Amino acid sequence: MIVEIVSIGNEVLRGSIVNTNAAFLGKELLKIGVLVSRQTALPDTPIALKDGLQEAHERADLVITTGGLGPTFDDITREVVADLFGCGFSHREEIAADLRGRYQNISVSISDQARQPHQAELLPNAVGTAPGLVFTSNHKKMILLPGVPKEMQHMVHFQVIPYLQKMLGERKVFVEQLHFGGLSESQIDPVLRQIQEKLPLVDMGIYPSHGTMTVSCMAEEEKELAFAAGILESHFGSYRYLSSSGKIEEALHNQLLAKGLTLAFAESCTGGALSAAITSIPGASQYFLGSSVVYANRMKEQLLGVSSHVIEEKGAVSEEVALAMWEGAMRITGADLAIAVSGIAGPLGGTEQKPVGTICAAIGGRGELPDVGTFRCFGDRSAITLSTVNRLLFKLYRKIEYGISCFES
Amino acid sequence: MIVEIVSIGNEVLRGSIVNTNAAFLGKELLKIGVLVSRQTALPDTPIALKDGLQEAHERADLVITTGGLGPTFDDITREVVADLFGCGFSHREEIAADLRGRYQNISVSISDQARQPHQAELLPNAVGTAPGLVFTSNHKKMILLPGVPKEMQHMVHFQVIPYLQKMLGERKVFVEQLHFGGLSESQIDPVLRQIQEKLPLVDMGIYPSHGTMTVSCMAEEEKELAFAAGILESHFGSYRYLSSSGKIEEALHNQLLAKGLTLAFAESCTGGALSAAITSIPGASQYFLGSSVVYANRMKEQLLGVSSHVIEEKGAVSEEVALAMWEGAMRITGADLAIAVSGIAGPLGGTEQKPVGTICAAIGGRGELPDVGTFRCFGDRSAITLSTVNRLLFKLYRKIEYGISCFES
Repeated sequence: MIVEIVSIGNEVLRGSIVNTNAAFLGKELLKIGVLVSRQTALPDTPIALKDGLQEAHERADLVITTGGLGPTFDDITREVVADLFGCGFSHREEIAADLRGRYQNISVSISDQARQPHQAELLPNAVGTAPGLVFTSNHKKMILLPGVPKEMQHMVHFQVIPYLQKMLGERKVFVEQLHFGGLSESQIDPVLRQIQEKLPLVDMGIYPSHGTMTVSCMAEEEKELAFAAGILESHFGSYRYLSSSGKIEEALHNQLLAKGLTLAFAESCTGGALSAAITSIPGASQYFLGSSVVYANRMKEQLLGVSSHVIEEKGAVSEEVALAMWEGAMRITGADLAIAVSGIAGPLGGTEQKPVGTICAAIGGRGELPDVGTFRCFGDRSAITLSTVNRLLFKLYRKIEYGISCFES
Repeated sequence: MIVEIVSIGNEVLRGSIVNTNAAFLGKELLKIGVLVSRQTALPDTPIALKDGLQEAHERADLVITTGGLGPTFDDITREVVADLFGCGFSHREEIAADLRGRYQNISVSISDQARQPHQAELLPNAVGTAPGLVFTSNHKKMILLPGVPKEMQHMVHFQVIPYLQKMLGERKVFVEQLHFGGLSESQIDPVLRQIQEKLPLVDMGIYPSHGTMTVSCMAEEEKELAFAAGILESHFGSYRYLSSSGKIEEALHNQLLAKGLTLAFAESCTGGALSAAITSIPGASQYFLGSSVVYANRMKEQLLGVSSHVIEEKGAVSEEVALAMWEGAMRITGADLAIAVSGIAGPLGGTEQKPVGTICAAIGGRGELPDVGTFRCFGDRSAITLSTVNRLLFKLYRKIEYGISCFES
C-alpha cells in the first residue's frame, strides 16, 4: 500500500511551526508496518492545494492530510477535497447535536462545522470541533485530519490506526526498535552492514540523537527480525536501554520506579535541563526529589557548600567541583542517587585546556564513592546541553542496570 | 520565483526525526521575502528520490534539498541529482586539501567527499565534511545542502542567503515580525482582519506558540508595512516584546542584561524548564544565579524553608506556597528578582477545585511585595509546562518593561 502524508498550511511552509504532525504520523504508521513514501506540505491557496492533493492521490493508495479543517477563512481543505472527489455538501445533524452538547453554542461555529461533504465518512473529534473525513474513490482513500496536534493524535490513535489495521487485514510486518546510549554511529555501522549482508530482507535504519541512538529493524519474518536483534544484542547488549518512546529519561524513570530509589541533581552547565528531562515524564514525582541549579559560582558555595578555595584552585569546571557539588546534593536532599555536573556549554568560556563541550560530572549513590570523570560533547550550545543530559542519564542507568562504572572507556 | 524545499531521508518519513530543517529554511527564506511554495520529504531510494526531485525541478525555479550528502551507503543525493542534470564526477583537490587540513585523515572518508559532480558549484562546509552543491540548468537551480542541522544552518546563513540575495537583485520585500505575550488568537484576529481590509497587499500571518504569539507582516511598500505594524502597536503595545528569535527568554535576557538585574527561580511543576529556558541563551550566566527545583514537598521545606503547615493546610499548589517559595528563593540566592511557581502539569493530580493546568506563582523583586496569583494552562503535560514557562517569563518582562502588575486581567 502506497501511503503519502500531506500537511496543509502556510505556517508550515513559512517555518512558523515545525511539522511535528508528519513525524507523528510516520511513527505511528511504522508501528503497524506501513512506510510513508512521501510527505508534502502545501499552502492554503486553492489551486496549489488542489494540484498537490491530486498528484498525491494519483501516486498513492492512501493520502492522509492534516490541517485546514477549522472554521476560519484560511481553512479550505474540505472544499478543495470535496471538489477533487466531485462531492457536494450537506448538513450533518449528528455533528451539530454533538457540538451543541459539548460547547453550548459558545464560540463555536456549529452550522459551519456541521456542513460536511455528503459522500465522506465522518471521524468524530472527541477533543475539538472539526471532525475528520474519509473520502473513497476507486479503492483509493484520502483521510482528512485536523491540524491541531492533540486532536489529530487522538483521532489517529482511536480511529485511523484501527481503521487501517482493518484495511490491511492479515498482512503482518514485524518491527523492533532498539535504543542504545554511549555508542557512536561508526561503532554500530559495521555490525549493521554485516547483518544486512546476512539478512537482506530485514529493513534497517540507524537514527542517532545527541548521545543516544535508535536502530530500527523491520521484517516480514519474525524469525529474521529476532535474529537481527540478537546480533545487535550480542555486540552491544550493555549499551542498550528499554524505552517505548526511545528517550533515555523514560528508561531511567521506569528503572528507578521499579527499584524504589530517589534521585536528585546538582546542575551547573545544564542549567535545569537535566531536571526538565526527568520531570517531562508523568509520575516523576514518585522518585525525583529536586535539584539545585547552581549557575553562579556563589550559588555552588551557598546552596551546595562547595568550597570557594576548590573553585578558585581547580576552576568551576573540574572534577573536584563536580564531586563537591555531588556531596552537597546528597547531603541537602537525602536522595538515594545523585548526578552533579559542571561544564562549558559555550559558545564562550572555552580554553585550550578546557575547550567548549568539556563536561565534568559525579554520579553515584548513598554510602559509596561516586564515579567522577570528564567527557567532551560537540556541537552548538543546545546540542552540547542535550548530549550532556542524555549521556549523564544513560551513565546512571547503565551503572544501575549493568553495574558498569560511569567513566570506564 | 517559485521555490521548493526537499528533505531527503527515511528518518524523516518514519518520524524518527522531526523535520526542523524545512522549517528553518522556510523561516530564513521568508526573511528575504521568498515564500516557499511546497515542501517534500523523500526516501533514500534512488527511483523514488529521482522522481520526486525531477517533479520539484519541473515545478520550481529553485529547489533546495537537505540530506543525503554524507559518505555512508544511504547517502545518494549527489549521485541522483548528478544523474538528473546529466553530469559526471571528478576529484576536487581543493576539498581534499581542506579536509586533510581540518581532520588529519581521522575518521573522514576524504576521497569520497572530494569526489564531486564536475559541473556543480561547490559551497564549502566550514562546520562538517560534506560540501554543498549548486546545479544550474536552463536558469533553474538546485541547491544541495547537508542534512545535519548545524552544518546546513551555517551554510544557509553565510552562503545560500547571500547567493539568493544576489540572484533576487533589486526586488525588495519588507518583512516585520511582531511578538506578543499574554494574548489569545481571538483577541488579535479581529484587528488583523481590519488591517487586511485596509491594506490588502500586506501579507499577514498569525502564529501562536504556547502563551506567546508572532504576527508576521510582509509588503512590497515599506510605508504599508509601517502602517500595519503601527495599528498592531496601538492596540497591543503593552503586550509586545522585542526578540530576534521570537523567544520570550531572549527578550527577558536582553532586558536583564541592560538593567543589570540578577534573577533566580524556585520551580515545582515546571521541574527545571524555567531555568533551562533562560540558560539556553548564551551569556545567561551574567545575570542568572540559579534555581531550586523543589519537586518533592520535603524539598520545598528543606531547601526553601516553606512551612509544612502551609503545605498541609493550603496544598502544595497554592498562592501561599508560591509566596513562601519566592521568599525562600530571594533569601537563599540574594537575587534582585525571582519567580516561584507551583502547579499541576498533569495528566494526574487534578481535582475539581484545582484542575490539571492550575498554576500558582509569585513574581517580584527585592524590597517590595511580589505579585501573587493563579492562572490556568491547557493541553498535555508538555504544553502546560511550555505555556507556564512562557507566560511566567512574559509576566516578569512586562512588569519590568511597562510596570504592569503580573496578575492584572
